[in-house]
Amino acid sequence: MDKVNLAEKFGSFGDYWSPKITGELNDSYIKLVKLKGEFTWHHHEAEDELFLVVKGKLLIKLRDRDIELEEGEFVVIPRGIEHLPIAEEEAEVLLLEPKSTLNTGNVQNERTVAQLERI
Amino acid sequence: MDKVNLAEKFGSFGDYWSPKITGELNDSYIKLVKLKGEFTWHHHEAEDELFLVVKGKLLIKLRDRDIELEEGEFVVIPRGIEHLPIAEEEAEVLLLEPKSTLNTGNVQNERTVAQLERI
Repeated sequence: MDKVNLAEKFGSFGDYWSPKITGELNDSYIKLVKLKGEFTWHHHEAEDELFLVVKGKLLIKLRDRDIELEEGEFVVIPRGIEHLPIAEEEAEVLLLEPKSTLNTGNVQNERTVAQLERI
Repeated sequence: MDKVNLAEKFGSFGDYWSPKITGELNDSYIKLVKLKGEFTWHHHEAEDELFLVVKGKLLIKLRDRDIELEEGEFVVIPRGIEHLPIAEEEAEVLLLEPKSTLNTGNVQNERTVAQLERI
């Protein structure tokens, strides 16, 4: 039961689109991820997903509109909703989602990270 | 599925120790709460609880040690662990916990808030 300093944890890795597990509660993981560039359209069949922007900006494209997140803003993407995260510049994002969640959801491609590192 | 700006939401209320629901995902609520002073020793029988300090400082006393959280730090208090939150000065805290969670856990007193406001 150690506390987590977000800035320190984000400073401990540099790769993009590779969420790191930094805590767990109930059936969920808290993950930290650095994003840069465009991800992959996907949805999660059974999991709602929280994106909290800790640093930078994150655009989440939905099929019918865009959500622009700045530092200190979060959104919950409900299960089943297709989304495409895009970060023009590097962004640091906290994710909260069920342990069963795969980063690319219903899609399996070179962006899929099945085994997550713990930091 | 609207985004939430933390600073804006914290600016919308002023009362202490009264968590406001600002989002939900899976079986959990995201709550925002302002803290000042000392709370009540309690534990949650079946729920792990996340405290993320957005502004200010938060001391969480456990029976065997203290955890001091500053801005940008979080801790997960596992179910069953007695804790006592104390904020010497006003602190703004994001909580994440199962919907079933009562703020005073196993204790019912004047600090208990059974019906939470949504903001």
